[in-house]
Amino acid sequence: MSDQRYKIVLAYDGTAYAGWQVQPDQRTIQSELERVLAALTGDTPCVHCSGRTDAGVHARSQVAHFDLSRQVVETKMQSGMNALLDDDIRVLLFKQAHPDFHARYDVIRKEYRYLIWNDRVVPPHLRLYRTPAMRKLDPAPMRAAAAMIKGEHDFAAFSANPNREIDGTRRKLYALRVLQNGREIQIVAAGSGFLYKMVRSLAGFLMRVGAGELEPESAQTILDSKTRTATVPTAAARGLFLWRVWYK
Amino acid sequence: MSDQRYKIVLAYDGTAYAGWQVQPDQRTIQSELERVLAALTGDTPCVHCSGRTDAGVHARSQVAHFDLSRQVVETKMQSGMNALLDDDIRVLLFKQAHPDFHARYDVIRKEYRYLIWNDRVVPPHLRLYRTPAMRKLDPAPMRAAAAMIKGEHDFAAFSANPNREIDGTRRKLYALRVLQNGREIQIVAAGSGFLYKMVRSLAGFLMRVGAGELEPESAQTILDSKTRTATVPTAAARGLFLWRVWYK
Repeated sequence: MSDQRYKIVLAYDGTAYAGWQVQPDQRTIQSELERVLAALTGDTPCVHCSGRTDAGVHARSQVAHFDLSRQVVETKMQSGMNALLDDDIRVLLFKQAHPDFHARYDVIRKEYRYLIWNDRVVPPHLRLYRTPAMRKLDPAPMRAAAAMIKGEHDFAAFSANPNREIDGTRRKLYALRVLQNGREIQIVAAGSGFLYKMVRSLAGFLMRVGAGELEPESAQTILDSKTRTATVPTAAARGLFLWRVWYK
Repeated sequence: MSDQRYKIVLAYDGTAYAGWQVQPDQRTIQSELERVLAALTGDTPCVHCSGRTDAGVHARSQVAHFDLSRQVVETKMQSGMNALLDDDIRVLLFKQAHPDFHARYDVIRKEYRYLIWNDRVVPPHLRLYRTPAMRKLDPAPMRAAAAMIKGEHDFAAFSANPNREIDGTRRKLYALRVLQNGREIQIVAAGSGFLYKMVRSLAGFLMRVGAGELEPESAQTILDSKTRTATVPTAAARGLFLWRVWYK
């Protein structure tokens, strides 16, 4: 009997988790998924995702794959996982995958959204999923800065730790948009790959621009510097959602 | 020096609270507000709201009043209260009120919304604020039933405990609407006053109609019966929001 590969689409509230990756004595998304898969199948699969999320970061739609030693009934596995998981992680889809499918290597595009509440006071039911704006943000200069950042650049100045990147620090942002709907501001970032804490660095920078602390034009200077400095803060984890992942 | 009356508009996530009203050894919205007002002013005011909410029920916009022994700076009081309260209660507005203003007696209209996720699986970031539909709901029969219930009736059959009502069980619903936006269904109920657990009883009934378990026409039979039976379930607290309160 040969291994069967499965893929899942899942959503999670990252508030109570130390991120995706298994870590000793920590509650993580990966360890929760592996725990319930072991309980349901007797296998001990390793679960691979499209890209690890950090502590406190949410996912609206994350994709992962793993191998099981035998064929399983997809709908039963989905409801079984949801019955055993806490309700801050939900399996939205459980499907057999091609044996060559890889949740990380096969990604062609990923979209993150950074959600801001444009006021100091966040409505209580949104408090874990929006970052408050301590100074009122104007989306117009944020859009001007975003337009300069969109495209292919060396993003070292917008990574938390550029030296740790194995594939260098050049990346291409297909889209970087600033949407406004009432008091909610969404920063939409789409690309084939992102550096460590890149979206939260872009969000931190754009929030400073929106607050009038930095000019939109500083985007170019900062990109050119290729150096991360305190000018670019890392925005809080609670506003970040992995929104969607595309495959070939 | 004479008492000064103040009104506040507040929002809360009811998940962690045993409802509005002060109860021994329980964390309630009223006791939290009274605790921080005492800490900020040295007074021990009693806080009166537009209408008590039950354990687990949320408020998007609740109104309350109280008296303080001296004049205070409204903006400072608002930020002081928000600094001392947990972030699942937020004071949205703090304003001096007419000495005769009463948060409960002066209400002319209140709107509640009951929020349903039309699927068994609720996205994790909405799980505390939406009731899942265990069977797929069709909004069309829900709307037909709602149209029959709108208006003035004896709502005894839609109250958890009609015998406890002092003012009788006749009430007027100005509006009872069923809105749909993707997987979200909102039941909007507006009236001058509501019986105990009336909105959750209406929501429980309408969900059964949407699931095809009851005919829309049963609304009339149930109203006419003036008797609460197991046909009308009380929908879960987590889906209910006090949405807005109007004053003369």
